[in-house]
Amino acid sequence: MTRVVSGGITAPAGFRAAGVACGIKKPGTSATPPLDLALVVADQIASAAGVFTTNKAVAAPVVVSRAHLLQSGGRAKAVIINSGCANACTGKAGMQVAREMAEATATAVGSSVDEVLVASTGVIGVPLRIDKVRAGIADAILELAPDGSDRATLAIMTTDPFPKSYAVAIDTPEGTITVGGMAKGSGMIEPRMATMIGVLTTDAQVEPAVLAAALRTVVDESFNAITVDGECSTNDCVFALASGSSHIEITSAADPRLLAPLRAVAGHLAREIVRGGEGATKLVTLHVTGAASREDAFLAARTVANSPLVKTAVHGADPNWGRLIAAAGRSGAAFELDGASVTIGDVELFVKGVPHDDRADRAAHVLQEKTITIAIDLGTGGTGEATMWTCDFSAEYVRINAEYRT
Amino acid sequence: MTRVVSGGITAPAGFRAAGVACGIKKPGTSATPPLDLALVVADQIASAAGVFTTNKAVAAPVVVSRAHLLQSGGRAKAVIINSGCANACTGKAGMQVAREMAEATATAVGSSVDEVLVASTGVIGVPLRIDKVRAGIADAILELAPDGSDRATLAIMTTDPFPKSYAVAIDTPEGTITVGGMAKGSGMIEPRMATMIGVLTTDAQVEPAVLAAALRTVVDESFNAITVDGECSTNDCVFALASGSSHIEITSAADPRLLAPLRAVAGHLAREIVRGGEGATKLVTLHVTGAASREDAFLAARTVANSPLVKTAVHGADPNWGRLIAAAGRSGAAFELDGASVTIGDVELFVKGVPHDDRADRAAHVLQEKTITIAIDLGTGGTGEATMWTCDFSAEYVRINAEYRT
Repeated sequence: MTRVVSGGITAPAGFRAAGVACGIKKPGTSATPPLDLALVVADQIASAAGVFTTNKAVAAPVVVSRAHLLQSGGRAKAVIINSGCANACTGKAGMQVAREMAEATATAVGSSVDEVLVASTGVIGVPLRIDKVRAGIADAILELAPDGSDRATLAIMTTDPFPKSYAVAIDTPEGTITVGGMAKGSGMIEPRMATMIGVLTTDAQVEPAVLAAALRTVVDESFNAITVDGECSTNDCVFALASGSSHIEITSAADPRLLAPLRAVAGHLAREIVRGGEGATKLVTLHVTGAASREDAFLAARTVANSPLVKTAVHGADPNWGRLIAAAGRSGAAFELDGASVTIGDVELFVKGVPHDDRADRAAHVLQEKTITIAIDLGTGGTGEATMWTCDFSAEYVRINAEYRT
Repeated sequence: MTRVVSGGITAPAGFRAAGVACGIKKPGTSATPPLDLALVVADQIASAAGVFTTNKAVAAPVVVSRAHLLQSGGRAKAVIINSGCANACTGKAGMQVAREMAEATATAVGSSVDEVLVASTGVIGVPLRIDKVRAGIADAILELAPDGSDRATLAIMTTDPFPKSYAVAIDTPEGTITVGGMAKGSGMIEPRMATMIGVLTTDAQVEPAVLAAALRTVVDESFNAITVDGECSTNDCVFALASGSSHIEITSAADPRLLAPLRAVAGHLAREIVRGGEGATKLVTLHVTGAASREDAFLAARTVANSPLVKTAVHGADPNWGRLIAAAGRSGAAFELDGASVTIGDVELFVKGVPHDDRADRAAHVLQEKTITIAIDLGTGGTGEATMWTCDFSAEYVRINAEYRT
């Protein structure tokens, strides 16, 4: 079993991190400028893997990082991440900036360029000032510390209402493996892809191909199973770095000694992204069962999880199960109304096609909680099922996104 | 050319309509109870056609109306529509109520049961009180009038901020053909299907099969090309009735003498639904060009038109073209960033992959209008294109839908 430990992304041995302010983000109300550049450095070259956005309007740093992982054969020394500017849709100049960001980091940490992974997050279409990034890298190098996780985590935030980092350890007969991670949300969060920026670290000793397979497995059931607003960013990526400092060798992606703590950290961070979704006040766990296939179950879960009518009903604590049924019915998944059921918390509101509206008051009570479970049976008699996490949709989401850029 | 005429759904000869209050809708703040039952009656049996929701959680009145059109071979004497209760997800009892609603109407207007079309709109999962409907039908029969369109139009509204009716006439060498219509929105509005309740009437003399083909054509480019919130209702349907009173025979669905006025009325009503979308303050016409195919163009248009980030940016008059590109990029349509362009009004903000942010202020000015045109070129060099209509996303949408049921 895994246990929670402190230290976030620098909890595993072999990593240092820093977060600095280099003037990319607009100053806030605070007297100190906001942190906007995070640097994570492995003491030795680490095994590395990445999962990237499937958006065809892909940002320059994603193009660069994907190429670097290929060129290096899955090895990395450092990850450099700025917030406040996505360096997306910035044309050839943007590609040049992403490359120079990697080069400056490589020079500073003493690695080859392809051993640096780059990520950016923030507004799309605005040029990223490389002079500011260079100055930030110089500062970050000086600040690198084995307890630098908190500042790095703060430096990757955009509209996130709180920082998201986590670490767990698993004790094995051969010793302890630790996995740490940090992530940012909180808009443009959509299932089916790496939907944010996340960095996971571990001291396991693992080859890049095994690390990549394990990362893919846990991403599919964590970051790919959440949604805030159904949007998929131009910049999404999750990186995993393995330092090997524990000297415990993992040779299979299915090895629970790595998979269990990776899953715990990725799952926690994913749910934290939803909980901190733009304007979110509630975290909803959505179970879909009775589907003709696992794909159908995810199709229905995704449609329900992204339905504005469902999300506003949850916000208003309105047990409007009809919206859940309507969303499942329009999802494209096989659906049998006469066999379908809806349960909110432990309240069965709609059972095999029959409403139980006398239970609506109890369900409304459940919906006032901050953490809610909703179960939908699609009524096909199939065994397909899926779990997703979503949040409610509030007027605050509109306020945030109507005012984000200007 | 068509010209606008007054009279709405009763503008074509051969139709009478009524709208009455029968106590299904909750009383509002007004002293008079809200109208909630609409009846449209053809003087003689009319040719009839319908387009129905594709939602698998289909409501009882849709099942009944679809069956009646099949049984009657596309003939109808009357359409009976209640608002305030969708009679959806109401099980076998709901099917019985929908049938009894048709039977009571048939008895009252002196037709066979299958010559009555039934529709319901409102909250899902609540039983429809047939006693109230029966009383309403008795009242409506007495109120039926050749100028009853306005009251019928009011009686089908739910959260609609204003009634939607329209009529046009076309003068031909053989005489004048008139088409009238009424529609209601304004939530659960999604492209690709008949996405609301609408009734179109005409005095053209046209066989059911020709009317059905013409209806399908105009629905695809009107009601199926709009979106408010990406939702597809359990109850959506559009009916067309042709009285033949003009004695002008239409034998082809492509005949512009029927198609042009049908298109004018359906297009106008569809745009009015968007303009009156829940919480909407702006009507956006979205042109997608440069797509690999027409299907790709619609896919991209639909994704952009439903994007919460795009819709909130429009609401905030924020020329955040990056969100348009990101939504197009994630749509699944073929997309080439280097060839892609975005134009808001007449302001080219992003031209073949290059941002022109110095024009952002001009675009922000355009976005302050109530009626906005946005053009996106997907950059593939293809000739596929599509036009859709959408609205902005406001805090008012959240307020309406968080409080709708309770």
